[in-house]
Amino acid sequence: MTSPTFRASILTLYPEMFPGPLGHALAGRALEKGLWALEAVQIRDHALDKHRSVDDTPAGGGPGMVMRADVLARAIDAVSPPDDPRPRLLMTPRGAPLTQARVRALSEGPGAVILCGRFEGVDERIVGARNLEEICVGDVVLSGGEAAALLLLDACVRLIPGVMGKAESGTEESFSAGLLEYPQYTRPQLFEGEPIPDVLTCGDHARVARWRHAQSLAVTRARRPDLLAPVAPHDGTMKERE
Amino acid sequence: MTSPTFRASILTLYPEMFPGPLGHALAGRALEKGLWALEAVQIRDHALDKHRSVDDTPAGGGPGMVMRADVLARAIDAVSPPDDPRPRLLMTPRGAPLTQARVRALSEGPGAVILCGRFEGVDERIVGARNLEEICVGDVVLSGGEAAALLLLDACVRLIPGVMGKAESGTEESFSAGLLEYPQYTRPQLFEGEPIPDVLTCGDHARVARWRHAQSLAVTRARRPDLLAPVAPHDGTMKERE
Repeated sequence: MTSPTFRASILTLYPEMFPGPLGHALAGRALEKGLWALEAVQIRDHALDKHRSVDDTPAGGGPGMVMRADVLARAIDAVSPPDDPRPRLLMTPRGAPLTQARVRALSEGPGAVILCGRFEGVDERIVGARNLEEICVGDVVLSGGEAAALLLLDACVRLIPGVMGKAESGTEESFSAGLLEYPQYTRPQLFEGEPIPDVLTCGDHARVARWRHAQSLAVTRARRPDLLAPVAPHDGTMKERE
Repeated sequence: MTSPTFRASILTLYPEMFPGPLGHALAGRALEKGLWALEAVQIRDHALDKHRSVDDTPAGGGPGMVMRADVLARAIDAVSPPDDPRPRLLMTPRGAPLTQARVRALSEGPGAVILCGRFEGVDERIVGARNLEEICVGDVVLSGGEAAALLLLDACVRLIPGVMGKAESGTEESFSAGLLEYPQYTRPQLFEGEPIPDVLTCGDHARVARWRHAQSLAVTRARRPDLLAPVAPHDGTMKERE
């Protein structure tokens, strides 16, 4: 066992959901090897009353319940003291969309404290009070942040040094290079009457590389023109999106 | 038990990851009640050789392994005959981004057959041969499609009739209305010196509604200007994105 440098602390009403899928396959083997660590903390254990309440009705009215800032603060403080170097993330549809660049940066750091919202969300005051980074995974509404936290950790863990072997090299991948990946083919040569494209079996590596790049560009243009659009960074100059 | 109208079939190399988080909380209770059904099928059980191979090296070279079209075809056909009314989804970073509109449409249908890619992806020929809809969840690279499938199902299941109770009404939510949600607050009135905004405790419902709408617009403009940008649909006219 090495001492894991990437430590994830999940704050949730459903700690039994963790490690869940992360206990299997690549992430699960890495967890067993001690290449990363995971703790799931029951927010309810930090409630202030005997009913262990974590939520209350929204100020100003409206449906549903809102998670209380004071209870969340106690839960966060219990796993993440003020000098904790780990970023504190809040999984919420109101957040900034998760990107591969953010995933890579997280995987190179000390880990993350991840707060999983439920119900109608969390009291806004906790976001500033505990410096939470609001992150959204997919433009969809979930029953809670847990599924988003699992997905984020899956993306991070595979990039931790030592987790991926040669078989999972991860060099030529969608988003890593700013383009969607080219189509892949393998044996059998003929599948239901359709052969592997000739170019891939011609043995001319330069031609294969050109074809693949053209295919990457074409599928990105067709499905994700947003990845090709120039974006304006804060300094006012224009550059291709990473 | 009612007979579930929404049936999910997952094709994966890791069936032990399911139901995973979907066996708990809202989705788990709905699963127990029979409001939806889930089966996870081991792709490897449909391999053609005694080594139970599911993948092979990429035609044209390159790192990693590609899942074979013939093996995937057998696995798909075993759970989804040609007359299966369910859409067949492939979770892949090459896919179209998942949207709340697609989630809602799926939740109103008969379910889904979900193929979870692994390694360098699947042989492209299976996509056309079995009419797979390629879907991407978040602009990140995962160790496999499983975490994305769990997230997609979490989003779908909560919308199945009877799954959400009054407490989870789901009417005013991010993406549903095309805007991110307004900030929420609840008791205590004062949290670490910060009070709930006055407008929410003034008792003037119209003023609360106006403030919330303005807050929704502001956070959407700041974090997700893409949700506000007019998009050009195929008919050439311009409209606000849904």
